[in-house]
Amino acid sequence: MAKLMVGVMGPGEDATDANIQTAEYLGRLIAKEGLVVLTGGRNVGVMDAASKGAKSAGGLTIGILPGSDLSDVSEYVDIPIVTGIGNARNNINVLSSDIIVSIGLGLGTISEIALALKSGKRVLTLDIGTEAWYVLNFLAPEKYRLLSCQHPEHAIQIIKHQFKI
Amino acid sequence: MAKLMVGVMGPGEDATDANIQTAEYLGRLIAKEGLVVLTGGRNVGVMDAASKGAKSAGGLTIGILPGSDLSDVSEYVDIPIVTGIGNARNNINVLSSDIIVSIGLGLGTISEIALALKSGKRVLTLDIGTEAWYVLNFLAPEKYRLLSCQHPEHAIQIIKHQFKI
Amino acid sequence: MAKLMVGVMGPGEDATDANIQTAEYLGRLIAKEGLVVLTGGRNVGVMDAASKGAKSAGGLTIGILPGSDLSDVSEYVDIPIVTGIGNARNNINVLSSDIIVSIGLGLGTISEIALALKSGKRVLTLDIGTEAWYVLNFLAPEKYRLLSCQHPEHAIQIIKHQFKI
Amino acid sequence: MAKLMVGVMGPGEDATDANIQTAEYLGRLIAKEGLVVLTGGRNVGVMDAASKGAKSAGGLTIGILPGSDLSDVSEYVDIPIVTGIGNARNNINVLSSDIIVSIGLGLGTISEIALALKSGKRVLTLDIGTEAWYVLNFLAPEKYRLLSCQHPEHAIQIIKHQFKI
Repeated sequence: MAKLMVGVMGPGEDATDANIQTAEYLGRLIAKEGLVVLTGGRNVGVMDAASKGAKSAGGLTIGILPGSDLSDVSEYVDIPIVTGIGNARNNINVLSSDIIVSIGLGLGTISEIALALKSGKRVLTLDIGTEAWYVLNFLAPEKYRLLSCQHPEHAIQIIKHQFKI
Repeated sequence: MAKLMVGVMGPGEDATDANIQTAEYLGRLIAKEGLVVLTGGRNVGVMDAASKGAKSAGGLTIGILPGSDLSDVSEYVDIPIVTGIGNARNNINVLSSDIIVSIGLGLGTISEIALALKSGKRVLTLDIGTEAWYVLNFLAPEKYRLLSCQHPEHAIQIIKHQFKI
Repeated sequence: MAKLMVGVMGPGEDATDANIQTAEYLGRLIAKEGLVVLTGGRNVGVMDAASKGAKSAGGLTIGILPGSDLSDVSEYVDIPIVTGIGNARNNINVLSSDIIVSIGLGLGTISEIALALKSGKRVLTLDIGTEAWYVLNFLAPEKYRLLSCQHPEHAIQIIKHQFKI
Repeated sequence: MAKLMVGVMGPGEDATDANIQTAEYLGRLIAKEGLVVLTGGRNVGVMDAASKGAKSAGGLTIGILPGSDLSDVSEYVDIPIVTGIGNARNNINVLSSDIIVSIGLGLGTISEIALALKSGKRVLTLDIGTEAWYVLNFLAPEKYRLLSCQHPEHAIQIIKHQFKI
C-alpha cells in the first residue's frame, strides 16, 4: 500500500538561513505524523534541511536526484532515486508527491509549483512572497489549489486535513 | 552545422486570441530571418500559431511533443520529436533553443521561463504581465537575462543582435 | 544514509508462472537481508511478484512507474515514484539500483540489462536463456559484469558478497 | 506536415570501420530519397557517420543528444535536440522515428532496438550478428517487425515500400 508522501521543495544553493530553519522544522513535523518526506535529494538548501529534520524524528526520506550518480546526495536521504534527467526531474518530484509544500522561492521552485498546479496537485507555500503567490494563484486552475501558510504548523494542519489523519 | 533555433513558448488551450495572433506573426518574422522555430509541438495555442506563421514564410518548424505518438501534433510542425515524457519535456524545449520568446502566460509557460533562466538562456517576453515579469526577473541570475518586449519586431531585433545576423 | 537497493527487473504482462514464483521468492530473500527492493512498480509480472515477496518478509519496496498517476501501481509498493516518462524510466530503474537481478526476459528487460551494463552496474540473471546471456555478455564492458545465476539463493550470495553483508 | 524520419542507430565510440562506412553510405541513400535522418546526435560512430552521409546528399539531419549542451554534437547535425536526460533519450530516438535502421551492435543499440520493438516500430538491422538477431526476433511482438538486411540498398527498398514512395 503506497505511503503518503509530502514533497518539500525550495531553493538549493540560494536558500536563506530562514528557509533552511523552516525546512528542517517542517521535515520533523511531517515525519512525526508518520508521513514520508520527498525532496530533490541534493545535499544543499531546503531539500537537505527537510530531509535532516525528517530523519531527526525517525522519518523516511526520498530524494529524486537530477544527476546520474550519488555524488551530491544528501546524507539524510534514505532512498535516493537517481534519475539522470537533470531539471526535468522536477516533474517527477511533483507527480510523486501527494501534496507539496514550498519554502522560499527560486527558479527551480517556481517551475515545480507551476508543474504541480498544472498536474492538479495542491501546493502549500511558506515564505513565497506576495507577488509570486499572486502570479501563481492567478494561473492556478481552481480556488484553494495554492494556499499560503503562515508557519509550518499551519501547513501540517492542512496536510492532516487532506489526508484525513 | 547546427541551425539557430528560436523557442516560442506560451499557453496551449488557454491562449487568448491576442496571444495567437502575436505567435503567428512572430513565427513568420523568425522564419523570414532564416531561423528555425521550436515549440511544444501540439495543435493548440501559441505553439500551433507560431508554427503556422513560420510555415507561411517557408520556415522550418520543430515540435517537442509531450505524448508518445503524433495524435496531437500541429499540422504546421515539420519535425515532431515524440518524447513520451509529458511535461518533463519543457526542459528539452528550453535546452534545445538558442533563445526563447514567451507569449502570454500559463503554468507551463512559467515553468519553461524559470527553467530557461536557470539553464542560462535568455528569455524575451511578450504579454507576460507586469507582476509575472517582476517575479521572474527578481529570480533571474543576471541582468538582461529576461527582457520584456513591446512587440514581435522588438523581439526579432534582439534575436538578430544576439545571433549577429 | 542511502539504503542499499536491489533492482528486480523482468517481464510484466508476459511473465511466465515460473518467473513470478522466482520473483516472489527472490523478493522475500532480499527483504530478509534488510535490503530494499526496487522495481518498475506496476501491478503485473515480475515487478508485482518481487514486491509482494519483499512485503511478505516485512521489507521496503520502491516502484518506479512509467505513467503519470497511480492507476497501475502494485499494491505491494510502499514508495511509488510517478515518473510520467514512459519506458524512458527504465534508465532510472537501473541508475537507482546498487545491483540488478533480472528474471526471465522481455523487451523491456533486455533494454534494462543493456542500460545497466552500459552504466557500469552489475547484473545477475535468472532464467535469461543461453542465447540472450551470450549476446549481452559479449557486449558487456568487462568480465563478471553479467553473471548467470542458477537460483535465487545464488543471486543473494553474490549480492551479500558485493554489499559486504 | 510531419516529414518522414528514419532513425539510424548503432555504436558510438565502439563502432567498427565497417559500421561507419555502412552508416555513411546509408545516410546518403536516405537523404537521396528526401527522407530525414534522425540519430543520437553525438560526434562519434554510427550517428556521426549517418549524419555525414545525409549531409553529403543535401539531406536534413536531426540529433537527439543525451547531454545538456552542444559540447559533443556532430558537425553534421542540422537540428540538435538537447535533451539533458542521458541514455533515457534512447526512447525519444525510437518514438520519433517512423522506421529504424540499426548498424552493428552495442549496449545502447540493443536497448534502442528493444524499446523500438516494444513501442511497435519496425527495425531493420545491418551487421547485427546472428545470435542477437535471433534473441531480439524471438521477443518481437509480431512477425516481420525485425528484418535483417543484407546491405543498405535492401534497407532502403523496405523503407520505400513502407512509406509508399
